[in-house]
Amino acid sequence: MNHPFLDLPPLTVEHFASIERRVAELLGTRQDVVITQGEALLPLEGCIRSAARPGSTALNIVTGPYGTTFGNWLRDSGAAVVDLAVPFDTAVSAPAVARALAERPEIDFVSLVHAEAATGNTNPVAEIGEVVRAHGALFMLDAVASVGAEPLLPDAWGVDLCVIGAQKAMGGPAGVSAVSVSERAWARFAQNPAAPRRSYLSLLDWKERWIDGGRKALLHAPAQLEMLALEACLDRIAVEGLTGVTARHAAASAATRAGAVALGVAPYVPLDAQAAPVATTLRVADASLVVARALAADPAAPLAAGGGALGREMIRVNHYGADAALPVVRACLTALAEALSADPSEALASAEAAWAAALH
Amino acid sequence: MNHPFLDLPPLTVEHFASIERRVAELLGTRQDVVITQGEALLPLEGCIRSAARPGSTALNIVTGPYGTTFGNWLRDSGAAVVDLAVPFDTAVSAPAVARALAERPEIDFVSLVHAEAATGNTNPVAEIGEVVRAHGALFMLDAVASVGAEPLLPDAWGVDLCVIGAQKAMGGPAGVSAVSVSERAWARFAQNPAAPRRSYLSLLDWKERWIDGGRKALLHAPAQLEMLALEACLDRIAVEGLTGVTARHAAASAATRAGAVALGVAPYVPLDAQAAPVATTLRVADASLVVARALAADPAAPLAAGGGALGREMIRVNHYGADAALPVVRACLTALAEALSADPSEALASAEAAWAAALH
Amino acid sequence: MNHPFLDLPPLTVEHFASIERRVAELLGTRQDVVITQGEALLPLEGCIRSAARPGSTALNIVTGPYGTTFGNWLRDSGAAVVDLAVPFDTAVSAPAVARALAERPEIDFVSLVHAEAATGNTNPVAEIGEVVRAHGALFMLDAVASVGAEPLLPDAWGVDLCVIGAQKAMGGPAGVSAVSVSERAWARFAQNPAAPRRSYLSLLDWKERWIDGGRKALLHAPAQLEMLALEACLDRIAVEGLTGVTARHAAASAATRAGAVALGVAPYVPLDAQAAPVATTLRVADASLVVARALAADPAAPLAAGGGALGREMIRVNHYGADAALPVVRACLTALAEALSADPSEALASAEAAWAAALH
Amino acid sequence: MNHPFLDLPPLTVEHFASIERRVAELLGTRQDVVITQGEALLPLEGCIRSAARPGSTALNIVTGPYGTTFGNWLRDSGAAVVDLAVPFDTAVSAPAVARALAERPEIDFVSLVHAEAATGNTNPVAEIGEVVRAHGALFMLDAVASVGAEPLLPDAWGVDLCVIGAQKAMGGPAGVSAVSVSERAWARFAQNPAAPRRSYLSLLDWKERWIDGGRKALLHAPAQLEMLALEACLDRIAVEGLTGVTARHAAASAATRAGAVALGVAPYVPLDAQAAPVATTLRVADASLVVARALAADPAAPLAAGGGALGREMIRVNHYGADAALPVVRACLTALAEALSADPSEALASAEAAWAAALH
Repeated sequence: MNHPFLDLPPLTVEHFASIERRVAELLGTRQDVVITQGEALLPLEGCIRSAARPGSTALNIVTGPYGTTFGNWLRDSGAAVVDLAVPFDTAVSAPAVARALAERPEIDFVSLVHAEAATGNTNPVAEIGEVVRAHGALFMLDAVASVGAEPLLPDAWGVDLCVIGAQKAMGGPAGVSAVSVSERAWARFAQNPAAPRRSYLSLLDWKERWIDGGRKALLHAPAQLEMLALEACLDRIAVEGLTGVTARHAAASAATRAGAVALGVAPYVPLDAQAAPVATTLRVADASLVVARALAADPAAPLAAGGGALGREMIRVNHYGADAALPVVRACLTALAEALSADPSEALASAEAAWAAALH
Repeated sequence: MNHPFLDLPPLTVEHFASIERRVAELLGTRQDVVITQGEALLPLEGCIRSAARPGSTALNIVTGPYGTTFGNWLRDSGAAVVDLAVPFDTAVSAPAVARALAERPEIDFVSLVHAEAATGNTNPVAEIGEVVRAHGALFMLDAVASVGAEPLLPDAWGVDLCVIGAQKAMGGPAGVSAVSVSERAWARFAQNPAAPRRSYLSLLDWKERWIDGGRKALLHAPAQLEMLALEACLDRIAVEGLTGVTARHAAASAATRAGAVALGVAPYVPLDAQAAPVATTLRVADASLVVARALAADPAAPLAAGGGALGREMIRVNHYGADAALPVVRACLTALAEALSADPSEALASAEAAWAAALH
Repeated sequence: MNHPFLDLPPLTVEHFASIERRVAELLGTRQDVVITQGEALLPLEGCIRSAARPGSTALNIVTGPYGTTFGNWLRDSGAAVVDLAVPFDTAVSAPAVARALAERPEIDFVSLVHAEAATGNTNPVAEIGEVVRAHGALFMLDAVASVGAEPLLPDAWGVDLCVIGAQKAMGGPAGVSAVSVSERAWARFAQNPAAPRRSYLSLLDWKERWIDGGRKALLHAPAQLEMLALEACLDRIAVEGLTGVTARHAAASAATRAGAVALGVAPYVPLDAQAAPVATTLRVADASLVVARALAADPAAPLAAGGGALGREMIRVNHYGADAALPVVRACLTALAEALSADPSEALASAEAAWAAALH
Repeated sequence: MNHPFLDLPPLTVEHFASIERRVAELLGTRQDVVITQGEALLPLEGCIRSAARPGSTALNIVTGPYGTTFGNWLRDSGAAVVDLAVPFDTAVSAPAVARALAERPEIDFVSLVHAEAATGNTNPVAEIGEVVRAHGALFMLDAVASVGAEPLLPDAWGVDLCVIGAQKAMGGPAGVSAVSVSERAWARFAQNPAAPRRSYLSLLDWKERWIDGGRKALLHAPAQLEMLALEACLDRIAVEGLTGVTARHAAASAATRAGAVALGVAPYVPLDAQAAPVATTLRVADASLVVARALAADPAAPLAAGGGALGREMIRVNHYGADAALPVVRACLTALAEALSADPSEALASAEAAWAAALH
């Protein structure tokens, strides 16, 4: 009884290391990259618990729901936490970060989510990174919803810990993830007696036993199928070209926004420059009801109401991975038009024009 | 660019829950089962860190290398630890466990590895379970190397925490794993303020947000490919029948042992009843050298030298999953005979007779 | 760059032969089975061109579109052809076949389609087989649309050439197919100087070089992926049980017919006993338009208008393979109700009752 | 019960057509390409039976075993056949073809195998094509063993019928194949009353119903898995680049030949320019015995004895697809050295030097 998911030849350490190198190439980073054997929450938690400890002070920038999660881990690790929250329909600005750092010179760790799939905004990481570097704090970036969708240059931007997953714009698996770690981040982890060690959460284990050991033996059996799927999506990105992939996401965002406006629907994030290319959020009354109607018209449209309280006023149009495509944008706009009893023709024309202009 | 590992329709929560139920059926358990999204070390660590805390006392039975890992986690969690170690070529006995428990009535947690793939022994869990239950301690069993290879009856044996992975006798993936949790284990976790919560290590998160929430939403995106591979190996086991699968492993063990004796090689674990059906260990001088010669003769033979210091005196013949098959046993014996400059014919005849007798 | 469809270890002849044996088991036949490396039209054409020749006379029973194809091949091979056509909304009867045979004693070949997916009828093969056997002609049955959906007993029914494909009720691939061949069919082929030899169309090549050669070498590289998919669908049928699979198809047929009647729509094939379990055809005015509306309401519903002129008056509801399931039947009825501006509730209730009664 | 080979969404006609276009791009042809739903013998037979008929005269160039097969089909179709056979250790020359054509001006069809995997030679198709074009005959080329391994330019070379399969240098599936067809070949087929029509062998069916019908409907359900595998191997070739793939095969050939010579073994095809890049044949006494010894030393080495009588004097070293790699060449040479009780070190050094020089 054959099954292509079973009886695979074991993933060799050389093969594992080659996938690691390809993730590093995708990120354009010269730092160490660790492919963590779990969803991206695993390395995010591992980074925070390795870096934070009693006595440290963290600036936690909250531009969406994950900021709350990071704050919990930081407090749980004993750090003092300064939360810098901005409304979910906007981005944080570098000057705001600079002010927060200036007020608390002891801040030694900054956490930021690059793009928020849940709320549809994206933050100016390059500028923020400059401010954080000038201050001297360690800088952790959650790039799960930006990698593949928009430019991501961790080394140029001074990111010490850049966490990615493949399940959004990369069109890949969710079961493994990766983090790039700067030398000074490794040093900070090593000096922290409370950093996870000999633990599934530990990044230091990977440093000491995998990287420093010459990549001869993995810590445990890897999630082989997820690793192969990660490699397959990297292959596919190589065929299209990374700039082609990000351009496609930018076009999907521009087309969705243009189409929504033509339908009389306001983008939730007003400024184009602050709109995340993975997903477009829209401000609509009775959002859950409208989404239900739209899905009745087209059950395959990648639409969702906002999570929690946002379900009353926000619709999320996902356009990442294979869904960053003009036919999918068209299908979403058509379903929304039907749900709103509107004529879709102008929206479709606007979307197509915006798509073409973006890819020009 | 198509790839069967990419662009899969999302794994629904109903599908996830159905795989969970099938794991529970495989274990014949009425307890809750959690499919943890990482290698089996994840739930093992999660169990220990959830159960142990300052003030608790653990009996850690050490019959192979994993016992050391468990002891480290127990100490790290603040528990007092009594290590009960037996030589790696034998099993622990229920009376020995009873004595250890009698000496320290405050013991409230017992950890045991069922079968040791690394050393080739297996322990009498039914008898030990009876002793532990009489004492009243929580009982954690690492059944990764026994599930599918030998009888495993966690409920009948009083196991509170039974951890499995699919990568050995089940012939499945390593990237997800599972644990069955008794009601009193859940209660113990809930009372432990230091138990991991809101963490990748947390089992309580699964209890509170997945199980008690009616299995409506997962904690995060699952390792979908590993889940599908787990389901596929359960399908395959259903076709063969679980008793057929375990009988095949028992036959492989019997055949390997008989063949080795005919080659003049002593089993590392002298007693048949203490020999693990997943792997047969052999006592051979210069084991690493002999393994190198055997692999030169047949690079595909599932042979390895013992880990660490055992590499001087132990050869491990793996026969789990698809390798629990007479042709594989034959190939291993042939390669060993070549490495030892011995005639394989008697060994092969003995192995075949033992295989047939075991399956009779 | 990994891909599970590439770099597979070669399919061994033993493995190929084992799949062949499993097809024979599925058919319950003791005749030779050949797995032909192409769609089922390949062995159907191979059978006819091997059996028919100038001087032979064939009775070609036409109960759907494939009958025309068979007639063309028969004439092309130089045989005299008697077409026995019945309206597409009914089955042919054994007495009608008997009369046709009695009129032309020289008939030495009879071709019949068991079930017609295109028109939704099915024929009483057991009774017809008895008549054909009494007459002495060679009997070819196209069972592509019946295998897995309804009882199929080629040996008991006196079928000399039983052709199947896996793409309908078996839920498998279309790229390989199979035919069972009786001893007297082989003898007939061998005596025919015009039978294809050394040809992709040749069945005699398989007999002489594969079967009589002891199944040591295939004629050419096989369609390996299709072979593995065929094996996988046989595995799945084994898990469910063949009678379970056919019962599910019968229930889908009963439920669809009951639901249609409740919607005020007449089955195209009036008699239940003549209705094919793979697909239910319905008599509806402006069928193409109604189907378009139904698919607008639910693009995933397995509905189609009849082919050619039937598109004006026939809708086909497919319910084979994974679609032989109550939720799919419900979805089809709901979409049809929407297209007809009818209330679906009574239809759904009738369908569910019929489903339950059929599986009782 | 999930299986990645089952329950795939149907292959759309657009998708099928896109794979067809990609094959045309690979061949750099502006002619029609048909992806035939069977092994490459299917289109080869289809071409010959469509082009040849009583009254036509064919020049059948025989440089390996397939030439015999082609001759049989040509004679079977009623054509007069001129066989131009050359010894299997050499190539046919363009002047020899010119002479044969000059002797029989009525020749209207020429069949040639580009590279012979079975005998290891390759023919100068560009020069031969020029001669055939000057003569005016239809030119059929079997390029199964050359596509991906060496330059293949059917349009520039005047090939009217170029047949390929993906199972050799392309590293793809064997179950579908393809043929490019020139306008004048279509015309010839159309004028041949005996050309297969309404048949699995028919190429005209594809022309009339698929191509001329605007590629709206396939002739029958396709071999979907094989089609997807074909697409996947085209993707992989696109990543490496076609010239990279052919360069790798050339390097494998050069390295194998250099290594063999260093071992004291003569290439079966003496001239480098006549050696096929897919496989290197060697002249060795008692070839079958030597191969048996070599495979005992390394069962995974892609070595075989020559077929039939060649088994006494020829060894074939395959190096196509994933095996066109330096480690595989090294493994073959090491196993051969062991079988010949020779020291492999010089052979390995020569092979590595030749590999490097070829890729320089």
